[in-house]
Amino acid sequence: MFIDLRSDTVTKPTEGMRKAIYQAEVGDDCFGEDPSVRALEEYCANYFQKEAALFTSGGTLSNQLAIKALTNPGDEIFLDASYHINFYESASTSAFSGVNFSLSNHDNGLFDVSDLEKLHASKCRWSQNYALPRVVVIENTLGCKGGAIFPLQQMNNVFAYARDIGAYRYLDGARILHASIASGIDVTSYTDNADLLSMCLSKGLGAPIGSIMVGSQELILRAKKYRKWFGGDLHQAGMMAAAGLYAMQNHVERLVEDHEHAALLHQLLNDIDETPARYKGTNMVTLDVASLGVAPVQFAAVLRQNGVGGLPYNAREMRFMPHIDISRDDIYKAAGIIKDTVRALSRAGETVK
Amino acid sequence: MFIDLRSDTVTKPTEGMRKAIYQAEVGDDCFGEDPSVRALEEYCANYFQKEAALFTSGGTLSNQLAIKALTNPGDEIFLDASYHINFYESASTSAFSGVNFSLSNHDNGLFDVSDLEKLHASKCRWSQNYALPRVVVIENTLGCKGGAIFPLQQMNNVFAYARDIGAYRYLDGARILHASIASGIDVTSYTDNADLLSMCLSKGLGAPIGSIMVGSQELILRAKKYRKWFGGDLHQAGMMAAAGLYAMQNHVERLVEDHEHAALLHQLLNDIDETPARYKGTNMVTLDVASLGVAPVQFAAVLRQNGVGGLPYNAREMRFMPHIDISRDDIYKAAGIIKDTVRALSRAGETVK
Amino acid sequence: MFIDLRSDTVTKPTEGMRKAIYQAEVGDDCFGEDPSVRALEEYCANYFQKEAALFTSGGTLSNQLAIKALTNPGDEIFLDASYHINFYESASTSAFSGVNFSLSNHDNGLFDVSDLEKLHASKCRWSQNYALPRVVVIENTLGCKGGAIFPLQQMNNVFAYARDIGAYRYLDGARILHASIASGIDVTSYTDNADLLSMCLSKGLGAPIGSIMVGSQELILRAKKYRKWFGGDLHQAGMMAAAGLYAMQNHVERLVEDHEHAALLHQLLNDIDETPARYKGTNMVTLDVASLGVAPVQFAAVLRQNGVGGLPYNAREMRFMPHIDISRDDIYKAAGIIKDTVRALSRAGETVK
Amino acid sequence: MFIDLRSDTVTKPTEGMRKAIYQAEVGDDCFGEDPSVRALEEYCANYFQKEAALFTSGGTLSNQLAIKALTNPGDEIFLDASYHINFYESASTSAFSGVNFSLSNHDNGLFDVSDLEKLHASKCRWSQNYALPRVVVIENTLGCKGGAIFPLQQMNNVFAYARDIGAYRYLDGARILHASIASGIDVTSYTDNADLLSMCLSKGLGAPIGSIMVGSQELILRAKKYRKWFGGDLHQAGMMAAAGLYAMQNHVERLVEDHEHAALLHQLLNDIDETPARYKGTNMVTLDVASLGVAPVQFAAVLRQNGVGGLPYNAREMRFMPHIDISRDDIYKAAGIIKDTVRALSRAGETVK
Repeated sequence: MFIDLRSDTVTKPTEGMRKAIYQAEVGDDCFGEDPSVRALEEYCANYFQKEAALFTSGGTLSNQLAIKALTNPGDEIFLDASYHINFYESASTSAFSGVNFSLSNHDNGLFDVSDLEKLHASKCRWSQNYALPRVVVIENTLGCKGGAIFPLQQMNNVFAYARDIGAYRYLDGARILHASIASGIDVTSYTDNADLLSMCLSKGLGAPIGSIMVGSQELILRAKKYRKWFGGDLHQAGMMAAAGLYAMQNHVERLVEDHEHAALLHQLLNDIDETPARYKGTNMVTLDVASLGVAPVQFAAVLRQNGVGGLPYNAREMRFMPHIDISRDDIYKAAGIIKDTVRALSRAGETVK
Repeated sequence: MFIDLRSDTVTKPTEGMRKAIYQAEVGDDCFGEDPSVRALEEYCANYFQKEAALFTSGGTLSNQLAIKALTNPGDEIFLDASYHINFYESASTSAFSGVNFSLSNHDNGLFDVSDLEKLHASKCRWSQNYALPRVVVIENTLGCKGGAIFPLQQMNNVFAYARDIGAYRYLDGARILHASIASGIDVTSYTDNADLLSMCLSKGLGAPIGSIMVGSQELILRAKKYRKWFGGDLHQAGMMAAAGLYAMQNHVERLVEDHEHAALLHQLLNDIDETPARYKGTNMVTLDVASLGVAPVQFAAVLRQNGVGGLPYNAREMRFMPHIDISRDDIYKAAGIIKDTVRALSRAGETVK
Repeated sequence: MFIDLRSDTVTKPTEGMRKAIYQAEVGDDCFGEDPSVRALEEYCANYFQKEAALFTSGGTLSNQLAIKALTNPGDEIFLDASYHINFYESASTSAFSGVNFSLSNHDNGLFDVSDLEKLHASKCRWSQNYALPRVVVIENTLGCKGGAIFPLQQMNNVFAYARDIGAYRYLDGARILHASIASGIDVTSYTDNADLLSMCLSKGLGAPIGSIMVGSQELILRAKKYRKWFGGDLHQAGMMAAAGLYAMQNHVERLVEDHEHAALLHQLLNDIDETPARYKGTNMVTLDVASLGVAPVQFAAVLRQNGVGGLPYNAREMRFMPHIDISRDDIYKAAGIIKDTVRALSRAGETVK
Repeated sequence: MFIDLRSDTVTKPTEGMRKAIYQAEVGDDCFGEDPSVRALEEYCANYFQKEAALFTSGGTLSNQLAIKALTNPGDEIFLDASYHINFYESASTSAFSGVNFSLSNHDNGLFDVSDLEKLHASKCRWSQNYALPRVVVIENTLGCKGGAIFPLQQMNNVFAYARDIGAYRYLDGARILHASIASGIDVTSYTDNADLLSMCLSKGLGAPIGSIMVGSQELILRAKKYRKWFGGDLHQAGMMAAAGLYAMQNHVERLVEDHEHAALLHQLLNDIDETPARYKGTNMVTLDVASLGVAPVQFAAVLRQNGVGGLPYNAREMRFMPHIDISRDDIYKAAGIIKDTVRALSRAGETVK
């Protein structure tokens, strides 16, 4: 028995989703003829009230297509250092799009207009000497900051400023549905001001693969052109798009359950004095195991042997993410095992001392 | 009723393949934990007797990963102008890998050692002024040259020369199984001398998506690194890899049927004097409709209305490809419709005259 | 005593030019304040009757700036394989501009509308699969084809076609003055239809370094931006621009002398049966030394010991270029030495036989 | 009369330097035959006790060649956000080298081992997800931080750490001689631990153009290859190299005079309460004019009308740089004019209030 809380990407397709895949009507999407892809794209364009949508094989590809579609080599993009596009993808973005990153470096991953103003003050004048600011990226929820929500008003301010300086507004909304579900704010309020956004079908929603991009007809066409360049065009893509549509239709409302499970896990872990647990309101809980003098990588290894999967998240913390395969009962069991592991490692530490 | 002979990529998954997908055991391949992906990669590494294999979402991605893994910006690659990497992918390769193409321009798509020598004579000396020859690419079978087989001995000569000048040998073997099945030569004879090769699971083999790369451990690791860069890492990729494995285990031998159907179609079309039909021994038949004074795009449109799908292949020809969804009976019907269409357009032409 | 006929780039500044440099009024061109640079740029814009001009440090830089200013990564440029941009610069162009080369491969380096049509037929439709044709390049005179002139009417036809398909027209006119001087046709007739062109101040004109680009205000501004990117902005550039202006004012008309010297050299060498000499009407003479069974590199080495410099030009030929430091007397002497060398190597060959 | 203190790059060649240029012995450096270039490169290799040197046309080109020579696309380089390579060149570096910048953001431009450790902790493990740290850059003196010296011991620590993690150590020593002259520490103490360094001949030293790179034979050869790619190879480069050699032989010791003039200017400006003046020990003085409620750009405009040139340096400060064309008398005059301008603008401000 293994309770896998490492990520909300480890989910197995549900029986219903497998059936949707099994029965999917497909065509060759390289000829633009896959009805299941069309159905998903139309559903999502409508869902986010944008002109057009594009199915891609994953979130990194969507991010890369967005940067490529919105920039030319030598342009500059603004984002926080903690964002997926920088932390996990900087090599690709540098090598393929040739853009320069202007990074904020906030502990909470949130930047605001004053950060942009500061960067802009030094860089925004057009000059042959400078990289030009071309895109402002917001990630919501913040994947490397405990799943915190980038507050709506602050997003609006940042995006308004971006528009004023002529920069595109890109929303890396891999988990934007989590922000909406957790805050009770309609998702389109989060997405209305973005020129382009992407959302993951395999993060929390339970599809095996896939991400959806939405935006204007023109920007989606550009992204589609570059999807070809990145080798991301798929033939009978409908087999996977069908899973994505099933996820959109059946797994969005249930995210509230993951949030409740995360809150419960946080509450259960909260009384361990040695290792502060943190919860930012969506589907992640972090545990500061470095307080024990144990590196997250070590903690993860021991915990795995005890039957629970957690992710070494940064230099101090473990991360735990409930998801569609995790029941309330799993949370109680996992919490017990995590606490036992903390106690055991705590005692071991004392012995060593 | 529509008999779709445009490409062998338009195939729908068979019932057996859909079941294999439905039942696929999966894990998160971004953590390296998908058993169906592992099974496919091991099967293919073993099949081609190479150290390692990598599942990718398609042939263009495999080609791009190969070029990126084998070159640095400013390097030169040798290939024929008709190859997929040049004809369909030159924009990506230029933009992402920054390599320069040395192209042969043979009517039959085949180049030999003398072509390399000529290019090499002007370029091979190391010099800061010149792009360095780094990769020699062979495509087999030739997708833009009627599916002709690149003859084994000529391949061996070219690859031996490439090795001598220190260039990598890459085989774009999207349809290398067709070469083997049609020639009766073991597929490993074609692939043994390649440092890296790719093969499509969705061209002829009937999988919805996917391509496999095989080569040394080191080169496959490099390709895997760049798969991440290209946004090509998939979470529960096993859903699709399971289809690929099913195809490898069930759809290879049956390619002979496609070849027979193509030969039959060629024979049936061969007696139309106005439009010479050509057959190069694998799964493609071409028809020179420009002889009628009709552009392939127009011919395709009329033919489609009559119930048969064919591809405008170049400035003169239509292409027809039998595949797993096409029966012997379909071939007879399609041949009849094609001939009727030729006759109708021929009469129309006369009327016009 | 060494008569250096390797290239027209080996010239030493004349006494008059050295004085012009010595006395040059300069400023910091990175602040846009160098009067000698301004004077040269204005002179050249006026000379070619274009809106604007840009001084750069050399011909390769001008070519690179042109490609960068006229393309985006993934775009396609048309030119002959023998052109400087391909033969000497393909690595830079690939690596820095990420463009794809569509190459003609004519023995005489000339292509015409039918070549463009053929390439265009397969590529010109906009499609996400294809690189887009964005620039058509003409080199005139042809540096790797004996200095032949690209005929005016053929240039006009090619450039008209380019404009029709929406491609920029770039003239690599490193030696465009030679074409004008030799043909007696006003230079602006050659340059009027080019959107952008460059001309070398150190090829034949005798300046130590430098090239000039001319075109519309907008294109020159783009090139200037990229000159910064390429590290090509110079502080007191006027020291060198003054030499360029001196060359434009004093060394253009005298190119006729170089042409006469080349014609004379050709005539003097023409009676060697063993090694055909060729002359294309401007300032180059080639000698087919491979006919002797001697590689150009070897021939050049022996000839150098005998006191004459020539360039191993390709697999068969040596190239000789008269220039400003070469007198009529030098030509007679050089011809004698070259012929002696041919005879000596010819006898040596016989002895070997 | 205009006292130009905007930059130490605005210098005019001295009479002695003009003569050195006038008399320079030259050859075609594209054939590797320019004796004045060889003399300068040998002098500098010897001066910095490195294996080899390369003359380039300027500091930006040297920086770009260094990054290109030391990285592959997708690699990461460490530096402070204020460095020339980032602040002025990020567009080129992104577009041409495709590298990613890891930036420290210190008010004084100095980073130390702990900064590297922090960045390294998150990034240094080899992973396909991350850009790899490949180069650590130190700029000395700090061009955007008042010309402050990066302290030797701190440099040594940083470079030792860089070597330990397998990163190249690049010194942007555009004004490294100023650090040596001002600190009294032998310049080789600053440069010994750098794998590659560059130094400007036109910043303070008074040459019209030029920069010199020094390092191992292998790295200089790589830089030389890329100099060709960047279009930076020059024919009779010796005309300019001769000025560089003259500068190295005649203008290094006199930098002490510029430092004294800067110290004097600082002292003279120091008693203006409204606008704090700052001096960091080399050849720059800054003046915080924003304290007056005047933007640097405005201040510079008024000051220029009054006969003194100063550079709007950042959002608050003007910068003044004494150089070879500036006498002690000029400093007194300039100080008077600057103070008058402050007073006038100060009164104007009061009037407005």
